[in-house]
Amino acid sequence: IDAALPFWRDALKLDLSHIEDINEQEALVAFLPLENSEIELVQPTTKDSGIAKFLEKRGEGIHHLCMQVDDLEACLDHLRNNQIRLINDQPMQGAGGSQIAFIHPESASGVLIELYELAE
Amino acid sequence: IDAALPFWRDALKLDLSHIEDINEQEALVAFLPLENSEIELVQPTTKDSGIAKFLEKRGEGIHHLCMQVDDLEACLDHLRNNQIRLINDQPMQGAGGSQIAFIHPESASGVLIELYELAE
Repeated sequence: IDAALPFWRDALKLDLSHIEDINEQEALVAFLPLENSEIELVQPTTKDSGIAKFLEKRGEGIHHLCMQVDDLEACLDHLRNNQIRLINDQPMQGAGGSQIAFIHPESASGVLIELYELAE
Repeated sequence: IDAALPFWRDALKLDLSHIEDINEQEALVAFLPLENSEIELVQPTTKDSGIAKFLEKRGEGIHHLCMQVDDLEACLDHLRNNQIRLINDQPMQGAGGSQIAFIHPESASGVLIELYELAE
């Protein structure tokens, strides 16, 4: 994050809202909000998390794409009915009471997709 | 695109606005608008374009991220002043009178970034 901020914050002039240590993701995350979307810079805090392994294997780059949905359970049902491979068959607890689930890249044109339902 | 639409359009239920053959990019592009952003599915129409080479080398996945800016020339000046490596030192003509330029992934945490200024 320290090495990346001179580009994303200073050169590209995105706002840095805050940096948060997210235990469940074993990562430090810098949040740079855009209009109705957000760039997150993710730095692993352990050596064996999914993010640490991604970095080791592929180097820096886009790790995943996140889309907000209104009803995550209904969305997962619909995806299953369409034979889409899910990483999380059931919603997991995310930050601040949100619910999240990942779609497997094999079913999504090689893209790791996180689905995210805000807490009510 | 034919193989990808069952996921992005049917399973994920994104709207497909249209599919366009974009000569300058040597690609067929399917546009799936989101709120204030957009997923584009890109299929090369030649064998030696950047996109064709990306697919051959890395397989399917996220090719680039595009951000809209108000003043592309000023943005490129500022990036140059910050020693950011650009692929396009000057704006190129994009679709519909827009102007575009790419930042080199080496300066952008491994992410290929397109900057895009809408036609006035």
